[in-house]
Amino acid sequence: MRSPKAEHTRRTIVDAATRLFRESGYGRTTMRAIAAEAGVSLGNAYYYFGSKEHLVQAFYDQLQAEHAAAAERVLAGDEKFDRRLRGVLLAWLDVARPHHEFAGQFFRNAADPHSPLSPFSPESAPARDASIALFARVLEGSDAKPLPALRGELPQLLWLLQMGVVLFWVYDDSPGQQRSRELVTRSVPVVDRLVRLSRLPVIRGVVDDVLGLLRAIRSPS
Amino acid sequence: MRSPKAEHTRRTIVDAATRLFRESGYGRTTMRAIAAEAGVSLGNAYYYFGSKEHLVQAFYDQLQAEHAAAAERVLAGDEKFDRRLRGVLLAWLDVARPHHEFAGQFFRNAADPHSPLSPFSPESAPARDASIALFARVLEGSDAKPLPALRGELPQLLWLLQMGVVLFWVYDDSPGQQRSRELVTRSVPVVDRLVRLSRLPVIRGVVDDVLGLLRAIRSPS
Repeated sequence: MRSPKAEHTRRTIVDAATRLFRESGYGRTTMRAIAAEAGVSLGNAYYYFGSKEHLVQAFYDQLQAEHAAAAERVLAGDEKFDRRLRGVLLAWLDVARPHHEFAGQFFRNAADPHSPLSPFSPESAPARDASIALFARVLEGSDAKPLPALRGELPQLLWLLQMGVVLFWVYDDSPGQQRSRELVTRSVPVVDRLVRLSRLPVIRGVVDDVLGLLRAIRSPS
Repeated sequence: MRSPKAEHTRRTIVDAATRLFRESGYGRTTMRAIAAEAGVSLGNAYYYFGSKEHLVQAFYDQLQAEHAAAAERVLAGDEKFDRRLRGVLLAWLDVARPHHEFAGQFFRNAADPHSPLSPFSPESAPARDASIALFARVLEGSDAKPLPALRGELPQLLWLLQMGVVLFWVYDDSPGQQRSRELVTRSVPVVDRLVRLSRLPVIRGVVDDVLGLLRAIRSPS
């Protein structure tokens, strides 16, 4: 447990870093400048964050927490699976919007799965797990009735869809990232249909093949 | 039409560049070093290639031509759609194998859709179109009978699958990129099933949604 004072200092440093990344770019922002912007000593900044990459992780965590809070408002009192999924994906676009320019800047690092900044890295596990748990909530409180074999995997598949939306959004230069919103509103009916069809005997073979494929590429054989 | 001598010089420069990219890395290789390695003057090298990026395009074109030649051997005399698709995707892994390390190095540039090195860029159109045409051949000579609405789009969808395989392969550090081969052998049955199922009335709605989605994200609205 962190003390309230430590939590406040930590948050002040993350906010300062986010501001500087946005204004000056990720590459050009030093830990020294972040400490100065936050009004703490350089030693104190390093006490909380071992490197700039740790600050990006903290930024991910914060964005994830904001997304989870916005998603709660969508999920409360609506059990239609397609509306829940669409609302949660659009909520991410809303909370991420102020960070669009900055996201494009450091995305080259995040695209490498071996980078700690990748959403697939061990270092990103807390934000990733929290995000997958959010998609589990989208499913659990909904009227969707997927094939049981699919149910356990679906939150992770929905998270992969979200990563696809994020990738598209990073490079989306339409006004207000309008095309990313269109990607969401057009993808959700496809997912909704596929989840409903997953129980049909004729479709089960495909579902089994896809689940086997996922297991194979997830764990090195 | 290029003269045979010009074609020879051009090829010599591309081979020299590929060798140096592989040995010294894309970032550290200069046009001057490439010209020296090819035994031509710097001015002559620039006459053929305006920049290093043009040399990467030429490398793409060459890899694509090698892939097309290897694919012909797979396609000759086999009309089973799944075997044709698997063979063509595995043939790419075979021809690309010597370039695996180099590919990882400059992939950070190619991941940005606004970069001329991206497979989605206007500059990459010749290699991309040739590759899509290859997947049209996979389909046309096969026993596959997709829904007519899907038939025209399928070569491009198969090319997108190939881009997914390439992305996976770039970061695949398993011995001999064995996991990329597994990705191919496990993806092909899924695609094969989905193409066969596309004619079922219950699936057509999904196919229409997916085609609408593709059109929407392809052309800015």
